[in-house]
Amino acid sequence: MTPENALLLRRCAEQARDAARRLAVLTTAERNDILGAIASTIEKKAQDILEANARDVQAARTAGLAEAMIDRLALDEKRLAAIVRAVHEVAALPDPLGPVEWQTPRTDGLEIGRMRAPLGAIAMIYESRPNVTIDAAVLCLKSGNACVLRGGSEAMHSNAALIAVVQEALRTCTVDEHSAVLVPVLEREAIAELLKHDDCLALVIPRGGESLIRHVATVSRVPVIRHYKGVCHLLVDRDADLDQALRLVIDGKCARPSACNSLETLLVDAAIAAEFLPRAAQALAARGVRLKADASALPLMPGAEPAQPEDWDAEYLDLILAVRVVDGFDAALTHIAAHGSQHTEAIATKNAETAQRFLRAVDASAVMINASTRFNDGGELGLGAEIGISTTKLHAYGPMGLESLTTQKWVVRGTGHTRAPVL
Amino acid sequence: MTPENALLLRRCAEQARDAARRLAVLTTAERNDILGAIASTIEKKAQDILEANARDVQAARTAGLAEAMIDRLALDEKRLAAIVRAVHEVAALPDPLGPVEWQTPRTDGLEIGRMRAPLGAIAMIYESRPNVTIDAAVLCLKSGNACVLRGGSEAMHSNAALIAVVQEALRTCTVDEHSAVLVPVLEREAIAELLKHDDCLALVIPRGGESLIRHVATVSRVPVIRHYKGVCHLLVDRDADLDQALRLVIDGKCARPSACNSLETLLVDAAIAAEFLPRAAQALAARGVRLKADASALPLMPGAEPAQPEDWDAEYLDLILAVRVVDGFDAALTHIAAHGSQHTEAIATKNAETAQRFLRAVDASAVMINASTRFNDGGELGLGAEIGISTTKLHAYGPMGLESLTTQKWVVRGTGHTRAPVL
Repeated sequence: MTPENALLLRRCAEQARDAARRLAVLTTAERNDILGAIASTIEKKAQDILEANARDVQAARTAGLAEAMIDRLALDEKRLAAIVRAVHEVAALPDPLGPVEWQTPRTDGLEIGRMRAPLGAIAMIYESRPNVTIDAAVLCLKSGNACVLRGGSEAMHSNAALIAVVQEALRTCTVDEHSAVLVPVLEREAIAELLKHDDCLALVIPRGGESLIRHVATVSRVPVIRHYKGVCHLLVDRDADLDQALRLVIDGKCARPSACNSLETLLVDAAIAAEFLPRAAQALAARGVRLKADASALPLMPGAEPAQPEDWDAEYLDLILAVRVVDGFDAALTHIAAHGSQHTEAIATKNAETAQRFLRAVDASAVMINASTRFNDGGELGLGAEIGISTTKLHAYGPMGLESLTTQKWVVRGTGHTRAPVL
Repeated sequence: MTPENALLLRRCAEQARDAARRLAVLTTAERNDILGAIASTIEKKAQDILEANARDVQAARTAGLAEAMIDRLALDEKRLAAIVRAVHEVAALPDPLGPVEWQTPRTDGLEIGRMRAPLGAIAMIYESRPNVTIDAAVLCLKSGNACVLRGGSEAMHSNAALIAVVQEALRTCTVDEHSAVLVPVLEREAIAELLKHDDCLALVIPRGGESLIRHVATVSRVPVIRHYKGVCHLLVDRDADLDQALRLVIDGKCARPSACNSLETLLVDAAIAAEFLPRAAQALAARGVRLKADASALPLMPGAEPAQPEDWDAEYLDLILAVRVVDGFDAALTHIAAHGSQHTEAIATKNAETAQRFLRAVDASAVMINASTRFNDGGELGLGAEIGISTTKLHAYGPMGLESLTTQKWVVRGTGHTRAPVL
């Protein structure tokens, strides 16, 4: 890191901090107008964006990136239209800032209230998909926050074109264009250097692979919201409705294996293993799922391979499922405590008391009772839009919507009230 | 740090994590019973505690500590009775964990709710006053959290006696005694070593001087809630009621100068400076307050000294007040943005629109309108008990009560609901 680049990053953080102060006093309508301007500017500049994206895609092909990666990177008119639609959807969401919520006044007449306020300047560190650039900018601006964005180098041209669009929209609305900026230094060390400035940046949200998130968590002095991985379990309890349980297994594993809320390990109570596992094996085999079964499950699941110890911690993100027979409810809890990732845990049971015990004992951002792990999603849970999923418990736990980009400040109103008598 | 000590600290973090899992499933009554047992055990073991404390006080005198420090350290029967009373008060507070709050079910019958859950194992790093040991343990246990406590070395014997009392109470209730422990290694490096274990510890709360807090924030991989300092301002606006404003100045500065919510800088609109400042100077001089005034305020405040640039950032915690005349409302905001500490900011104004603008524009955990800065306090704001004051916006902003030691997890209940159709 040259001193010049370090200075550039410091200035970037300071400008975002100052822009955030100005954003904090805008009205709901003024913030929504920015989003409207972003949507129409994307439409106006579609050709520029697609050309920039084509350069990234070309470079990715030359570098020999996998087709799946290139697909994540590529934009076309249909995807741009989806991005524009998403911007309008966020604009239509309720304002997370809102007015002061006053409590009943104290007997001495002092009024106490709380008010949602923006966090300030938020850094986002992410990989590949260029739509995150617009998503992140729009969610931050809607909630009155500035953002400093650092996308993957493979989407460099796309991100530059998209942020240029956002900044043009900001200028149209006579709002400080530093309200949404790209990190101005490309080298990897820029992340650590930027994240020294905890006097300017309120929060950093890393989105991407586990190694990126661990890197950010290790180097950052700015508070980090982390989403490491989703090793999600379903416990088929001895009191489960086995037809329901089978549906939960199939949806959890097969509907979208690459999602972090997909099922990775199936735990089955020994009492119903002989009845349930052969049915599960057949249904999963028909859908092309590879099974890694422990010694008790193996003979009950034709075609399964023996599970290795590392399977219990694996986030496959693929059509592979680990299966373990557990000796009752407590053994299942012990397994989840040892191998869970605080993301999503599910139980299939008709026993309300067992469900209640599971709910209290399991440490996860979402606990599912007779429902698929895949419901742990901002849209499904009614948040409207999601900026990430937190698997740590400070500030936010689970999908983060607009409200998690705000804080609450106290407001006290009196008529010259003092705490001690003034003589 | 020897490998043996590093291992001791790792084990301490793991034991607290495991104890936290067991605490999370206790009922409200079971957690309150622990608090009752702590209160009665303190009474039973009062002699042991006072003897241990006498050893600390003796050592402090030998080491030549200041009388004010020794006073903070010393316990007597009256102070012990106050500690017991505080334990009963926390026991009587509502349970922050509570039941699931269900939303209206979705049209497909899926039920979505949220539930308050404990954070897990919480580390507290603090200085001097031994009552913090009981405060912290009791607030953590009430909210279902385990705690790992690290007090100042000058209170070593007192803290050991107090934690022995807590652990005896835990055993009486057949609860894991690792639910509240002291850090088992005394050297300073133990803080950094302990706070590596972010897989076991959910949160660390440092309480004490700014250098302790900065040290913890720098070395910790565990999320930190920070309270740096309180550089609190009062803006006497051109539309202020000057009698009220004078009361706010006197209460803010004189009632308890050593408190972090005391007033440190008085900002006065130039339009009313000539009328207000001589009155303020007289009232403050009569109460022994030293004044550090800027060039415009100086001739209006007999006996004031010229302010130096560093006065605008000073947390005096003493009978000293910085005074600055500002050229209108926006100049006051600029001063607060540059020198405020996000703790408490106050305005005296009869103009509702000005008050509203102040509220939105000022970034502080509490904003006071015609009320003293000293109301930024957990007890005054109705939290019942306070484990610290956060001046950063993640998770908690301002005084932290029991609720800030919890998180919310999502709960989803269905009847075999899947996200995609299962064919």
